[in-house]
Amino acid sequence: MKLASLKSARDGDLIIVSEDLTRAKAVPEIAPTMQTALDNWNTLSPALEAVYQRINNHSEKETFTFDPVLCAAPLPRAHQWLDGSAYLHHVELVRKARGAQMPPEFLTDPLMYQGISDQLLGPRDPAYFDTEEWGIDFEAEVVVMTDDVPMGVTPDHAGEHIKLLTLVNDVSLRNLIPQELGKGFGFLQSKPPSAYAPVAITPDELGHHWQDYKIHLPLHVHYNEEQYGAPNCGQDMNFNFAQLIAHAAKSRPLGAGTMLGSGTISNRDEHSGSCCLAEKRMLEIIASGKAETPFMKFGDRVRIEMFNEHNNSIFGAIDHQMCQRKQHETV
Amino acid sequence: MKLASLKSARDGDLIIVSEDLTRAKAVPEIAPTMQTALDNWNTLSPALEAVYQRINNHSEKETFTFDPVLCAAPLPRAHQWLDGSAYLHHVELVRKARGAQMPPEFLTDPLMYQGISDQLLGPRDPAYFDTEEWGIDFEAEVVVMTDDVPMGVTPDHAGEHIKLLTLVNDVSLRNLIPQELGKGFGFLQSKPPSAYAPVAITPDELGHHWQDYKIHLPLHVHYNEEQYGAPNCGQDMNFNFAQLIAHAAKSRPLGAGTMLGSGTISNRDEHSGSCCLAEKRMLEIIASGKAETPFMKFGDRVRIEMFNEHNNSIFGAIDHQMCQRKQHETV
Repeated sequence: MKLASLKSARDGDLIIVSEDLTRAKAVPEIAPTMQTALDNWNTLSPALEAVYQRINNHSEKETFTFDPVLCAAPLPRAHQWLDGSAYLHHVELVRKARGAQMPPEFLTDPLMYQGISDQLLGPRDPAYFDTEEWGIDFEAEVVVMTDDVPMGVTPDHAGEHIKLLTLVNDVSLRNLIPQELGKGFGFLQSKPPSAYAPVAITPDELGHHWQDYKIHLPLHVHYNEEQYGAPNCGQDMNFNFAQLIAHAAKSRPLGAGTMLGSGTISNRDEHSGSCCLAEKRMLEIIASGKAETPFMKFGDRVRIEMFNEHNNSIFGAIDHQMCQRKQHETV
Repeated sequence: MKLASLKSARDGDLIIVSEDLTRAKAVPEIAPTMQTALDNWNTLSPALEAVYQRINNHSEKETFTFDPVLCAAPLPRAHQWLDGSAYLHHVELVRKARGAQMPPEFLTDPLMYQGISDQLLGPRDPAYFDTEEWGIDFEAEVVVMTDDVPMGVTPDHAGEHIKLLTLVNDVSLRNLIPQELGKGFGFLQSKPPSAYAPVAITPDELGHHWQDYKIHLPLHVHYNEEQYGAPNCGQDMNFNFAQLIAHAAKSRPLGAGTMLGSGTISNRDEHSGSCCLAEKRMLEIIASGKAETPFMKFGDRVRIEMFNEHNNSIFGAIDHQMCQRKQHETV
């Protein structure tokens, strides 16, 4: 099943989207919003699934053309966004570039932070910043969305709570990170609103590409229309999503609609390219002592998308521009 | 005006509570939930205020007895919880106990973290933990709740966005903090769900005790029925709430219903007592080299409350118990 949220009120209008992302239908009589669907997933998802099947076999009347431009993030405002850092190759590179070793406990204890969830960007929404000096970077990631997860869930059972998957550009302000992390309380100003793919899908849509709670497909990143990277999300993921959920739920339950990210996708095979500028800069520093690739400029675009074996887009594309906030402008 | 949320569905039922916290009335025709009220504060608050006045002058029919036991947190699940650390005396003590200086930039750049907001505890809800070994501690704080705050708001204008105030017990798992902060991504497992006062109030309820975006009244903490501390929230607060909001909004707008905490209240005059066990332990370490006060045990209670000049409770009390999660129990 494929679901999305049309921009309307703060929580969006839930729509069911055809498998080929061409047509859609709102279902307010079943669930007006994505949050309602996730709050009541076990009772409502069969009815949503039935409409999805009818849209796909062209027996559902009154569908409309699906337009990702009209989409908000699948959950336009969520109650929780937790972002892991499951691709340790990325962490190793960051440390290697500054001459540091990765602590061995990072192999067993996932990195994860609590991030912004109150106002998320849709797939085509511009991202606003005061200045390029903040060091604007993209981070392409996979996200799972859960129903209610009990506190203390084990990795063996955590995967059952993954109801939907989507993609995120977890925007990072690299030049604000060192000072902020130096204060010891984690990211705040350095992690502004992120942008999400138009569509969230149930794991069965991935067929055999969803195994061991990982997606075994490349994530394609285009930076200003050029291919930038396409690492495989199933390779070099040191913690799968079940392990990440169990880590998050050690001392608390997770409410329905919790979104949990994989961290920047990163393969050890460097021919697959990167999913953020910082990683390319680290490779340059390791190779030549100096980063050559600048961070993003105003007007730059990033496009993040995943395709199935028939080269069809699975989630639709995140494709958005970095823009300067005008002074005195309410964003 | 005083507002609360009765436990019902996930978002609670908004009620208006009399100034003396004895009677209440639901107003689904105006706003069914606290989030709805904050989403539309400017248009809905006059109607809410009118009902509040009628409850207070006994002209509103069909009120019921207010019972804090039936209350959820004012926002039972919020889209954002940001916690500052505005009382630098507290930060200084923590550092002094381990022989470290406070960095001078802490005087101008507030400490703040993004915390859990998806499932908050009501004022009488037990808090569950797997083991006392986690080092359970309370932290008594003041919280502001905002409407929509634009990105880049200045401290001069940030205070206008404070619509409601309440109290929180920001539960901390002290023995999980060092390792977690050592990883560099901030708090996650070490900050489980917090408990909130039953009632949220508009700032005008505080009269002249609300000045310079600080509450100038003591916050009373009882630990297992004994007076533990009553520091004045207006003293030694290095950043006021307008400054904290502006810090949070530097690189992002804040959505309506954002909750922002003061950090643990702490006065330099140590006769006023503390608002957490860690601070008492730090004073013991500084005095004798060793912490004598243990962290909380299962069965321990903490009560957090604030009174006006007539000794009437302003927000009602947080009064809850620390409990052991039973294995295989869904919490």
